[in-house]
Amino acid sequence: MIPYKLVSLETRREPTVVRLANGATFGGEALAICAGPCSVESREQLCATAKAVAQRGANVLRGGAFKPRTSPYAFQGLGEEGLKLLREHANAHGLAVLTEVLDVRDVELVARYADMLQIGARNMQNFSLLREAGELHVPVLLKRGIAATVEEWLMAAEYLLLAGNKDVVLCERGVRSFDSATRNVLDLAVIPLLASLTHLPVIVDPSHGTGVARLVPPMAIAGIAAGADGLLVEVHPNPAVAVSDGGQSLTFAAFGELMTRLPGIARAVGRTLPAATVAA
Amino acid sequence: MIPYKLVSLETRREPTVVRLANGATFGGEALAICAGPCSVESREQLCATAKAVAQRGANVLRGGAFKPRTSPYAFQGLGEEGLKLLREHANAHGLAVLTEVLDVRDVELVARYADMLQIGARNMQNFSLLREAGELHVPVLLKRGIAATVEEWLMAAEYLLLAGNKDVVLCERGVRSFDSATRNVLDLAVIPLLASLTHLPVIVDPSHGTGVARLVPPMAIAGIAAGADGLLVEVHPNPAVAVSDGGQSLTFAAFGELMTRLPGIARAVGRTLPAATVAA
Amino acid sequence: MIPYKLVSLETRREPTVVRLANGATFGGEALAICAGPCSVESREQLCATAKAVAQRGANVLRGGAFKPRTSPYAFQGLGEEGLKLLREHANAHGLAVLTEVLDVRDVELVARYADMLQIGARNMQNFSLLREAGELHVPVLLKRGIAATVEEWLMAAEYLLLAGNKDVVLCERGVRSFDSATRNVLDLAVIPLLASLTHLPVIVDPSHGTGVARLVPPMAIAGIAAGADGLLVEVHPNPAVAVSDGGQSLTFAAFGELMTRLPGIARAVGRTLPAATVAA
Amino acid sequence: MIPYKLVSLETRREPTVVRLANGATFGGEALAICAGPCSVESREQLCATAKAVAQRGANVLRGGAFKPRTSPYAFQGLGEEGLKLLREHANAHGLAVLTEVLDVRDVELVARYADMLQIGARNMQNFSLLREAGELHVPVLLKRGIAATVEEWLMAAEYLLLAGNKDVVLCERGVRSFDSATRNVLDLAVIPLLASLTHLPVIVDPSHGTGVARLVPPMAIAGIAAGADGLLVEVHPNPAVAVSDGGQSLTFAAFGELMTRLPGIARAVGRTLPAATVAA
Repeated sequence: MIPYKLVSLETRREPTVVRLANGATFGGEALAICAGPCSVESREQLCATAKAVAQRGANVLRGGAFKPRTSPYAFQGLGEEGLKLLREHANAHGLAVLTEVLDVRDVELVARYADMLQIGARNMQNFSLLREAGELHVPVLLKRGIAATVEEWLMAAEYLLLAGNKDVVLCERGVRSFDSATRNVLDLAVIPLLASLTHLPVIVDPSHGTGVARLVPPMAIAGIAAGADGLLVEVHPNPAVAVSDGGQSLTFAAFGELMTRLPGIARAVGRTLPAATVAA
Repeated sequence: MIPYKLVSLETRREPTVVRLANGATFGGEALAICAGPCSVESREQLCATAKAVAQRGANVLRGGAFKPRTSPYAFQGLGEEGLKLLREHANAHGLAVLTEVLDVRDVELVARYADMLQIGARNMQNFSLLREAGELHVPVLLKRGIAATVEEWLMAAEYLLLAGNKDVVLCERGVRSFDSATRNVLDLAVIPLLASLTHLPVIVDPSHGTGVARLVPPMAIAGIAAGADGLLVEVHPNPAVAVSDGGQSLTFAAFGELMTRLPGIARAVGRTLPAATVAA
Repeated sequence: MIPYKLVSLETRREPTVVRLANGATFGGEALAICAGPCSVESREQLCATAKAVAQRGANVLRGGAFKPRTSPYAFQGLGEEGLKLLREHANAHGLAVLTEVLDVRDVELVARYADMLQIGARNMQNFSLLREAGELHVPVLLKRGIAATVEEWLMAAEYLLLAGNKDVVLCERGVRSFDSATRNVLDLAVIPLLASLTHLPVIVDPSHGTGVARLVPPMAIAGIAAGADGLLVEVHPNPAVAVSDGGQSLTFAAFGELMTRLPGIARAVGRTLPAATVAA
Repeated sequence: MIPYKLVSLETRREPTVVRLANGATFGGEALAICAGPCSVESREQLCATAKAVAQRGANVLRGGAFKPRTSPYAFQGLGEEGLKLLREHANAHGLAVLTEVLDVRDVELVARYADMLQIGARNMQNFSLLREAGELHVPVLLKRGIAATVEEWLMAAEYLLLAGNKDVVLCERGVRSFDSATRNVLDLAVIPLLASLTHLPVIVDPSHGTGVARLVPPMAIAGIAAGADGLLVEVHPNPAVAVSDGGQSLTFAAFGELMTRLPGIARAVGRTLPAATVAA
């Protein structure tokens, strides 16, 4: 295998810090807390969620407007309408917007509304999308493919850096395994492993990593303890009626309880929570 | 999960037979034998390979012009120049052209030269690409994702059928597992399993399925014995100098020997080899 | 890793042929056909099954008297009573007896009744059991562990050979993977892979390898096509009421149909079915 | 599947606390810190290690006298001589002894020297060994099999409880996966998952879980953050010359540094480190 280069610690010794417009950082002392619904479903849902997560300490609003769905009959997202809602409600609470882009032809559209583009697990090796997102110079969150090796993942990031984009954050979200007791196996050891290989920040998604809401808080905490630079957590006003991923979404109360537990853990590993967001 | 519908045997009881312009069929009594290099590298390489595989009984020429490469520094394919070479040398030997498309923006371009579009393992859940290829009404070979369940794979095919494309062939190419002794684990049981679930044809790729040239012939034979409707095999004039996948490519001689062994196996499971191609 | 030695083709170039008392062979031109119930349940069940499989061409009677069960509350086998039934009904039809041993303290007991000891997947690295069975000089069938690499499997066989037992047969029975559509993934590529590494024979167990009765015949056929030296198949008079593994057991009729299909496949790969058993 | 019963939270609501003779507890507020070499190699090695781990805060000495080795040519352990060394040097520092038993015939022997028997990953479904260890009423540490589901693991524990042994501790040590960057994937989500299913304590083995010494401390910390009741860590005076598992063993200094980081994490999740051992 031709080795990676731009992502390597040998090319750049100091950690990359990715900074969004609202001041949220990935890779610095302060953690990034990205929270929100799996799918943007409605104005009401997003309004309530944005407010709730901002009040409880998140600094990035996540939510899907374009949804990669296994079934063509499942809800595919609100599209641009969803992007507008994300921007509007993020602004109302000083949050940054993180949302997924699925199609090379939508990269510019999504970038008009988002502070950070997500490239999802299914698209980790969609090399056209990587090149397109790489040329745009908007921060990118690159999720690990469902059965991607660390080397393949770093190589995917290399495509982004090679295209000119330096603001890349990795996101561990679990790998496929044999036990259906959890949706995936959250592979937290990649966090210190990546720290020995790359200067790029890495965050953890315990929602997809476990698929079970009650396992999300302990694994969020474990992820921070392992050295992650932030969290990506699904939060929904009423998980029981969510159009997607309800089983792994936290209620506002559960998210709030997690946020009260984080400062102690963060302190134990030399990190801090993000400063309060503007309008929260 | 919302169930699949158009791909289901419950929707259509009789097997789908996909027929290419040169008469090659997938799903009928005759097997489809797709052979050629991993990457189109040069006129000389393709000219020699097309002739060699046609003479030994293949009826479809495979070859990559747009290559999905783990590393951005690896050879990315000849692009349209590669497509032209494929068309020219396939025509010279009565072969059909099967080649991969990676980018939604290239679907029409590739379809101008190819008889069948390949959607590769990495793009099995690139839903934009599925929709675009589905609307074009060119036969599509849909490879299984590297860690895709049968249900996810059939759902990806459902995207194609729902977009209007009825000419879809599935391709088992191995799934990722824990033993590095082979590149993947070729999961032949999906062949009879798919036959109980869907009317779509399925072929086997023992080259990616094993990653080891000497394992390709026995697994090709086993695949046909298990009920596969054809083979996808990498063949190269000189595997030792191939720019990609040399370790799993057959020499002309090894491919020829495989082809002499196939009729006996095909007969034992009630199948036939394709009729001789036009100019071979 | 310290390399294996006694199992290696470099130590012994000619294939090992393991021969049982009734003339059944593993590794010669003739295939070994091992069939019978998962568990020995009763005199009636075993009597009917032994007769049925012998009449349809099996030459080894398989059946469990000591059962390794995930749950302590599940049926654990008839013990010595089961061994007696196996011996009696195998003798009545000229079959050899293959049965599993779980406990080092039972090795001699089981060997008094059996022609071949099975060491199951869960015990592949039960090194005490390997040593004990190795010292006894009774043929051993060593199943692959549920997530064992080929190297680990060969090393387990090395324990047997090092203890003095040359009559060792390997059995591929599927490895654990992520898709619950089948119980395991039957890894047929190990058959030609093993042939390039070891002189030991290898058979295939499509019953555990798939866990689904209707997938057993095609995968049995594929296994022989891939070069396996025989089959291990679960057969039950009435799978619907089997105390274990009913879902993957063949009826007598289904086993009979498989046996009528085997000669054609065997011929295509240069093999033969076993000669008719004595009293069948 | 017949469900488990004795291990279930529905049978016993309050957490089981397993207490060893020296006061070490698993499942209470205080963590259990088990440390020591993979293999007992010599008096000098064990003497130095026992002293070093006791001084740095461990309360259980781990070390293998009977070693399950993939290769029959690898060091198989010192046997009873190793057990004597463990007892002697544990006593000298107020440590308890935890050591693996491989053979049903050795259970009583090992129990004469050990405070806690380890049943290793390869033997998780060695049901004879489980029954024998279950009848002895010595605390047992039951490691998860290399590809065991949580249900299979709990069922294995059920064998122990059903045989009369209530003092059972589970140990997550990683499962086999596709990425060779780490030896296994440490599946920390099972810790909160088990807490919702069983009253049994669970500890984490980051040494086998990662196979890489520099990943051990962060994963130990993450394990405690996830709610584990203790750690099992390999420590060696000079990992570079260890006869087994050198690559994943901590030096005394690295273990010491880990121990200085644990109190902060433990406090953040409401746990404490063990009280100082007697003679340390």
